[in-house]
Amino acid sequence: MRMAELSNRSGVAIPTIKFYLREGLLPAGQRTSPNQSTYDGSHLERLRLIRALTDVGGLSVGATRDVLGAIDADIPLDWAFGIAQRAATPLGHEVTPVATEASMVIDELIASRGWRVVPDNPGRRMAARVIESYRAVGQVELTASLSAYADAAAIVAEADLASVSERPDRALMTETVVVGTVLGDALFAGLRRIAQEHVSHRRYPARIPISEQTEASQ
Amino acid sequence: MRMAELSNRSGVAIPTIKFYLREGLLPAGQRTSPNQSTYDGSHLERLRLIRALTDVGGLSVGATRDVLGAIDADIPLDWAFGIAQRAATPLGHEVTPVATEASMVIDELIASRGWRVVPDNPGRRMAARVIESYRAVGQVELTASLSAYADAAAIVAEADLASVSERPDRALMTETVVVGTVLGDALFAGLRRIAQEHVSHRRYPARIPISEQTEASQ
Repeated sequence: MRMAELSNRSGVAIPTIKFYLREGLLPAGQRTSPNQSTYDGSHLERLRLIRALTDVGGLSVGATRDVLGAIDADIPLDWAFGIAQRAATPLGHEVTPVATEASMVIDELIASRGWRVVPDNPGRRMAARVIESYRAVGQVELTASLSAYADAAAIVAEADLASVSERPDRALMTETVVVGTVLGDALFAGLRRIAQEHVSHRRYPARIPISEQTEASQ
Repeated sequence: MRMAELSNRSGVAIPTIKFYLREGLLPAGQRTSPNQSTYDGSHLERLRLIRALTDVGGLSVGATRDVLGAIDADIPLDWAFGIAQRAATPLGHEVTPVATEASMVIDELIASRGWRVVPDNPGRRMAARVIESYRAVGQVELTASLSAYADAAAIVAEADLASVSERPDRALMTETVVVGTVLGDALFAGLRRIAQEHVSHRRYPARIPISEQTEASQ
């Protein structure tokens, strides 16, 4: 198909397709004349994947290039997870050190669960940065929910790995790792908002101003 | 304190403080001369909160202004959740409709759990958008993990509401809702990455290329 048809079928505008070609996210088509190329179903699939990763997963162009490279290579499964995790961790390239006490909170959690994790797993810094922020803004009590969050993370991680291992098609396995890791954060965040509203209604049935919802006097 | 000291103590550069003042995120100081103002501990606390919400929570300036407005007002608890959820939902202002089948998957999940949620809870669209993407990229099998994700979301939402209700100080309650909702996504995402690596090591102890990890032939 010509680029116009590729644009129509994918819903991606032609200038955007040209941008993806230039940035190396989308492989070049088959050249049919000096200024015309033809594209096939693999280009359409790749475009849909790019849109899912950038629009819904929120990945940058650079991060998208990293994970597409992982999908195109035959790499070990744990590498694929590592690349997908790093691409989908906004604080991953940050160099500011995290406060030692906050890192220790996460290290102790990992030890208490018996979790085996490399020191540079991007989740360590991400989680420790949140604990550090809770302390910085005087909301240290929020750290009490850490154990429940870890229980929930374990449930989701088991489901993530089950999805991958049930994949019959080897070529799509890395893609499953990438798509599930990148978009799974948004899926969980969406369900968390839904569950928060339900639990909030159950605990506080009426719309009462916060000042009347607690006995504490100021 | 003068702005230079506020900058030193908060670690926020003076031009950034001026930007926050101009954008209405930070209240003006007490004017002591035509071009000098003095700031107090409340400004320092507010700066730390702004940094936590923007740097760690990833909020835009506009979204930060929305949640700070909620913190400064005495509003019902469910409104505070709604404002924080909307500010922390990147796809919240998007108008493209989500495919009906994907929305139905989320509606059915909500119904099967007996969850009471308003139609415009921002999590509905966020979760449905992910389901739509899983289908668009041919990874519909990832939808099988939805039930585990919902279990995990319920655990986290219960912990979130418990954190809020245990807050003895009414004035900080809305702040707890905002900080916990905005930063909780990052905390969970970090712990999910840690748990994924652990479960991946347990299921696939050696570093074997994916092609050898499954019997399926191509």
